[in-house]
Amino acid sequence: MSVEHRPQGPLQDSPFLRACRREPVPHTPVWFMRQAGRSLPEYRQLRQGTGMLESCTRPEMVTEITLQPVRRHGVDAAIYFSDIVVPLKALGLDLDIKPGVGPVVAEPVRSEADLARLRPLEPDDVSYVSEAIGMLVKELGDTPLIGFAGAPFTLASYLVEGGPSRNHERTKAMMYGQPRLWAALLERLARITSTFLQVQIEAGASAVQLFDSWVGALAPEDYRRRVMPASASVFEAVAGYGVPRIHFGVGTGELLGLLGEAGADVVGVDWRVPLDEAARRIGPGKAVQGNLDPAVLFAPREAVEEQAGRVLESARGLEGHVFNLGHGVLPDTDPGALTALVEYVHQRTAR
Amino acid sequence: MSVEHRPQGPLQDSPFLRACRREPVPHTPVWFMRQAGRSLPEYRQLRQGTGMLESCTRPEMVTEITLQPVRRHGVDAAIYFSDIVVPLKALGLDLDIKPGVGPVVAEPVRSEADLARLRPLEPDDVSYVSEAIGMLVKELGDTPLIGFAGAPFTLASYLVEGGPSRNHERTKAMMYGQPRLWAALLERLARITSTFLQVQIEAGASAVQLFDSWVGALAPEDYRRRVMPASASVFEAVAGYGVPRIHFGVGTGELLGLLGEAGADVVGVDWRVPLDEAARRIGPGKAVQGNLDPAVLFAPREAVEEQAGRVLESARGLEGHVFNLGHGVLPDTDPGALTALVEYVHQRTAR
Repeated sequence: MSVEHRPQGPLQDSPFLRACRREPVPHTPVWFMRQAGRSLPEYRQLRQGTGMLESCTRPEMVTEITLQPVRRHGVDAAIYFSDIVVPLKALGLDLDIKPGVGPVVAEPVRSEADLARLRPLEPDDVSYVSEAIGMLVKELGDTPLIGFAGAPFTLASYLVEGGPSRNHERTKAMMYGQPRLWAALLERLARITSTFLQVQIEAGASAVQLFDSWVGALAPEDYRRRVMPASASVFEAVAGYGVPRIHFGVGTGELLGLLGEAGADVVGVDWRVPLDEAARRIGPGKAVQGNLDPAVLFAPREAVEEQAGRVLESARGLEGHVFNLGHGVLPDTDPGALTALVEYVHQRTAR
Repeated sequence: MSVEHRPQGPLQDSPFLRACRREPVPHTPVWFMRQAGRSLPEYRQLRQGTGMLESCTRPEMVTEITLQPVRRHGVDAAIYFSDIVVPLKALGLDLDIKPGVGPVVAEPVRSEADLARLRPLEPDDVSYVSEAIGMLVKELGDTPLIGFAGAPFTLASYLVEGGPSRNHERTKAMMYGQPRLWAALLERLARITSTFLQVQIEAGASAVQLFDSWVGALAPEDYRRRVMPASASVFEAVAGYGVPRIHFGVGTGELLGLLGEAGADVVGVDWRVPLDEAARRIGPGKAVQGNLDPAVLFAPREAVEEQAGRVLESARGLEGHVFNLGHGVLPDTDPGALTALVEYVHQRTAR
């Protein structure tokens, strides 16, 4: 597991991987969270008649969906098309992704007995992932592929609530009221997530992003005591591969330093904190990723470029900046606006 | 309008008003955002068969609903029962509050022509508010009544989107893409809000809270340039009355200093920023309000008290602390947990 899998040659010298390692780049690399998926008509066409989780188990479909935004927008990295609940589904949990709702868990996890259902993930449980990534790295050539997993807190919220939750009441009730059960749940999820990322790296992913979508709902002290140990063990489990580890959650202004401390090499930032201030909070030795407000893409092109320019301005002088949105591409985004944005960032930062 | 309406005697010496003015208090005062309403069975019973906006126009019903949590929990202040869209409805806009959805606007505001519908609010448009407050202040005696209004940004988001929005795409598209229209919209909303608060103060409210629920969706620089002038003009319009002006929005860690700068005497803080750090960001001369995570109330009493104790600890040594949740009471909250929390804070801080 701790073998050095770092690829050699032009892939390793791609602007994205160089920026993650805080090395000089020919232009600021760009990719978009949720670039693969719902905003693209070619995606919606391909997905017709296939459920979300079903589509994640079909290597050809995953490969095509992952490649679509690379072809269309000319982004500097591909992100493996998946969903954060894919490894949980692979364990045999009864869950589904309902259109317009999100992941729904038939039997929420709320007791010690429920933990038994969270057995360790075996690489064979997700052989379709290895297969898809094998196909993808051939197709992508020198374009890096970012592996993808949900972080323990966000997975726990779905499992405890039984679905998406605005306020995470039951999750927090367990966190505060049953701290031992909570810690055991997070530890199991950390192991599952670690295996899921190891599988992706061993199959050829040249970076990974750990999404902790909802972690911004926590105060810093609770994150540090009750969540960070689990996230840190995931980063530690993939440290030996030498691939950049990106960490992101929305609304995490108060947590940026801790997200880095958990073990990330690159910390994703939403649009609420300017990148120079974010870098100050994260501290030295880490790259930053972000942070254009995805809602800006609904404004005219001139306004998009003004705001994107502001992001680039705030990143000037930072060691290692990967341009991205401050959250996922919104479903109704005009794909043309994304393509134009990639061009703008490339031109504006060409050295 | 600029007459000094500050009431005299025991009301003025109530712990809540003293804390707002950063004077010594016999115990830390407590009230809860959304204390009047959905979490109380007596409220649900009273509201049966009456729509939300209809209920806001019935002085007897408003009075009863506003008093319910004061009686049940022994909180230190009442908050006027209303909804942020009440003044817009009073102008004749076609809007309704749909259960489980929120305010829905039949014809969204998206052009110069649409602005014409936002005529100035006249006190006679909301005579039921004056009537209800007149009844309330008699019933409340020495317990202060907090007036209530939505801030220009949050009102604008409902009007532009046509309803609640997770990402405020259209609102931000207007803000970035049509800055003059945006400024004109916010200015109109600021005038309407100013009149709505003036009416409440002149009828007897002894403090006001301006809710900017969604403003945490903005980066600080955008808030400063594109929103703060409108909020500041609302605070300025009620400055002459000498009543404490509270300002609150959720997810506003990056904006706390600016929310104070806009003209608030008391800045509400959500649970993501510890109160001592919040006070540092807000700067001297302002009180703070907050900030227990409302989800904590779903944990056992022991855990609630541990977390509430942490809030009190972080406020120790601050001049002026009003205990509150970091957001509104969640609908499924056990009312008994709220009553116990008031007792705990009072006992723990008794001097």
